This record gives sequence, C-alpha cells and structure tokens, in this order.
Amino acid sequence: MKALGCHLLVEYYGCDENILNNAPRIEEAMTEAADQSGATIVNSIFHLFNPHGVSGVVVIAESHLAIHTWPEYGFAAADIFTCGDKVIPEAAIESLHKALKAASRQCKEIPRGPQSAGRIRSCGASSKP
Amino acid sequence: MKALGCHLLVEYYGCDENILNNAPRIEEAMTEAADQSGATIVNSIFHLFNPHGVSGVVVIAESHLAIHTWPEYGFAAADIFTCGDKVIPEAAIESLHKALKAASRQCKEIPRGPQSAGRIRSCGASSKP
Repeated sequence: MKALGCHLLVEYYGCDENILNNAPRIEEAMTEAADQSGATIVNSIFHLFNPHGVSGVVVIAESHLAIHTWPEYGFAAADIFTCGDKVIPEAAIESLHKALKAASRQCKEIPRGPQSAGRIRSCGASSKP
Repeated sequence: MKALGCHLLVEYYGCDENILNNAPRIEEAMTEAADQSGATIVNSIFHLFNPHGVSGVVVIAESHLAIHTWPEYGFAAADIFTCGDKVIPEAAIESLHKALKAASRQCKEIPRGPQSAGRIRSCGASSKP
C-alpha cells in the first residue's frame, strides 16, 4: 500500500524575532502557506504565549499545518501533514521560509500510514547556522 | 543546546472503525490523552470529513496533539509535540491506544530545535499487523 500521508517536519533558523512573536503575522504566514500549497483550509487556531512564542494550527481538508515559534532563538518548528496528490507541501515550506525571513532551514519527510514506518529522508535546503 | 521540543509520530493499527469515524469520540479521546499527559489545553478543532475520516488538533500550552483517521483502514496517524519536562507524552500515546481500541502501534521520536536535527529513534511498542 502506498503511504496514506506525507509528514514534513521543518526547522527554520535565523528568523525575524518580531515576526515569530506576532500571532496575527504567524497566522497570515500559515494561511498564505496553505494557500500556496493548494490546500483547502477548514479551520485554524493561533495562540500567543506569555512571555513569548506563538503556536498555531491550520486544519486543511488534506490534514494539517502546525507551527511553534521560539522568538528568543529566532527559531520555528513547523510540520506539514498532507494526503493525496493535490497539495504541494514544498510550496508551503518555501512560502513560510520567506514569511518568517528565515536564514536557513532543515526538513525531514516521513511517510505516514501502514507499510510506511521507518522510511525517513531529508529534503530541501539543509544548511544550518 | 538541548532540543526545544519532542515530536512523537504514532501510527495506530487495527483500530475500531466506528470510533475513527466519530468526531465527538475522537475529540473526547484526544482531550483525555492531553489530560493524561499532564498538558494544559489551550484550544482545539475537530472535523468530520465526507465520506469518512476525522482530523483533529488540540493546541496545548506545551505545543500540540494532532490526529488524522482512516476508518476504512482501521488506521490513525497521531503526532504529539511537547516542550519542557512537565508533560509525559507516553501517557497520551497509551491513552489514545486504549480509546481507539488499537491492536498495535508504531512510534517515532524526533527531537525538534537547533542542534537536534537528524536524531530519530523508535519508541514504545513496535508490533504491526
């Protein structure tokens, strides 16, 4: 059986700290990323933590996009879970990279579903500060 | 630097198909899993798809829990992202296993954050039907 879903885990380094601590900006970035990937947005939640950091999730018809930010490290951890062939998750990754003004990123691709366990590969740009 | 977060990806096999297609039951299972792990729930979204399948996310103060179900395969893909030492994600994994009436599961643990890329290990029960 083909994997049912594709789960991409992306670490963004050297991001703009002010953007990482701005919940509306992160929501805008995530919504734009979902749109760029061709996903259909179902619902979303964004939350600004005290003293800092944003968590946000966009549920899409094809699964989800999530992000957690650490402004104090200029770091954001995103994950993009997609099903089917319609969505292009790489477009979401690139869109987020630009929106967060990231210096670099690392990405892992993990197939999800029966028969897919154990297959993990790196993808995309892999330079790290 | 220590990893900022711990991301557990869990594949549940042989689950109860009726539970997997019942959004309120999945929401209850995910909320209970978050509670069992000691997490603080911030907000949540659950969605029943047509013709079948549920997607749901619980945003917690310590990051998130997400699930996507395929009732037709008795399969659910969950991911549990936690930060700090307060939450015990293994308790959420075990709680979900019982709630979904899963026959078995596979789990991968992926540290998130600067310096943590590349370290991936299997965890928990690994039998697969």
